[in-house]
Amino acid sequence: MPQPDRRPPATPSGFAAATAVERAEGGGLVANLDPGWDVGAGILNGGYLLAVAARAAAFYSPHPHPVALSASYLRATGPGAATLTVTPGPAGRTLAHSSVLLGDAAGPSLAVQATTATLGTDAPVWSEPAPRVPPVEECLPEDAGGPADPTVPEVGLRRQVETRLDPATAGWAQGEPSGEPVMRAWVRLTDGSVPDPFSLVLFADVLPPTSWGLGLFGWSPTVQLQVLIRALPAPGWCLVESRAGEVAAGWMDENYRIWDATGRLVAQSRQLARLPR
Amino acid sequence: MPQPDRRPPATPSGFAAATAVERAEGGGLVANLDPGWDVGAGILNGGYLLAVAARAAAFYSPHPHPVALSASYLRATGPGAATLTVTPGPAGRTLAHSSVLLGDAAGPSLAVQATTATLGTDAPVWSEPAPRVPPVEECLPEDAGGPADPTVPEVGLRRQVETRLDPATAGWAQGEPSGEPVMRAWVRLTDGSVPDPFSLVLFADVLPPTSWGLGLFGWSPTVQLQVLIRALPAPGWCLVESRAGEVAAGWMDENYRIWDATGRLVAQSRQLARLPR
Repeated sequence: MPQPDRRPPATPSGFAAATAVERAEGGGLVANLDPGWDVGAGILNGGYLLAVAARAAAFYSPHPHPVALSASYLRATGPGAATLTVTPGPAGRTLAHSSVLLGDAAGPSLAVQATTATLGTDAPVWSEPAPRVPPVEECLPEDAGGPADPTVPEVGLRRQVETRLDPATAGWAQGEPSGEPVMRAWVRLTDGSVPDPFSLVLFADVLPPTSWGLGLFGWSPTVQLQVLIRALPAPGWCLVESRAGEVAAGWMDENYRIWDATGRLVAQSRQLARLPR
Repeated sequence: MPQPDRRPPATPSGFAAATAVERAEGGGLVANLDPGWDVGAGILNGGYLLAVAARAAAFYSPHPHPVALSASYLRATGPGAATLTVTPGPAGRTLAHSSVLLGDAAGPSLAVQATTATLGTDAPVWSEPAPRVPPVEECLPEDAGGPADPTVPEVGLRRQVETRLDPATAGWAQGEPSGEPVMRAWVRLTDGSVPDPFSLVLFADVLPPTSWGLGLFGWSPTVQLQVLIRALPAPGWCLVESRAGEVAAGWMDENYRIWDATGRLVAQSRQLARLPR
């Protein structure tokens, strides 16, 4: 039985507004990066930043949806005014390429290769099925570990995205890391909006570092992230799985797969990150 | 027991020479793209092109090795003179960013975000084990299907890389596709050189399209490819596995994992490609 939807209705302060881009006077695009999407210490989440860049790529493209985005995170990015410089590449009936540079007065902070196309909901010829995860109401909120530690800075991202952890991968939240760098969770936007290709870009970097499953806590800065969006997602919760293939020599990869509420694989990502110190 | 190495010794016409870049008169870098690394019809392999771009990124970096490369394939690229335009980004003790544009007189054909660092062989904290695959001598050469079809153009790449297919994923070569978009093979360079971070970039796009496992034959052009290099590989054959997560609406992803001769995970990649028509 589907759960009643108790979220507040979408407001202009939601995801769409926080990732909006608009024409600047004198040319180019600007965005106002929202301080509410941080991962602590005023540093904005990498998926949030990539969603802003995806809006910029789609702004100039004949196609409406991001299908492949690859980003180098040149430095940590904080909130405030940002410029987006889009250099269009070849564009055709099937897809269009561009590069997007996001930056501020201090210079570029995110360099993105973007491919846009027009996504649909065609049934796949082949698709990886979703893993078995308990229903949302049997999964755990991210503060399942007890009262928040007042010495740990609050993470804005967690207020923007409702997250329900698969208990099998949530041992770290109760002080008992599973020993495997794997996390699974149901997610949806707190603002009440349904998932779309841009929120899938956000979800592709939304979970805590999988190194927490190994007991290695702390922030894990993204170095390079590729996101593929494969289909328009159905309304409802999305299931996100993140898995490290190798943790070694200060580096970690995170391999994400995202299924929509119907169990359709709708997005994939892989990032290279630095391990927490 | 290791097999005797019957390959010819490395020659200047091998992988290193075919991917070399050098300073151009008047600034910038140039390469002479080798016609012997094609995938048919004079179109060069995407992994080969990305290896050339990786050499250009390393040329200007304080660090010697590519660790993350993300490339948009703007159009098919043929052999001959090419220019490489490198725009350095932030560089530090741990890593350096840059962007690389490969092109010719007709304009850019490959746009790359590159991260370079210094790789080692530190034992991993966590690493995905290699799948069970029969030893090289029990695997199949790629022409296991019988005499070459004279109507099919020869693929130069196959002469440069020795490939031994896992029989469990080689049904397509005998006219009996397995029904799964998965391929595994042992690979090494024909020129006798040992694997290094640059040949791993090549190996990250070296297998036939996994759609052949579904009986969907033909060329599958890469749209965007990300390659992560995780460690210096040991000498010997590398084991490459490619797997599609979803095949739908004319698109396919290919997720590669590469282990060295000791079973260490040394590289990963994911690409978005168009399905064969």
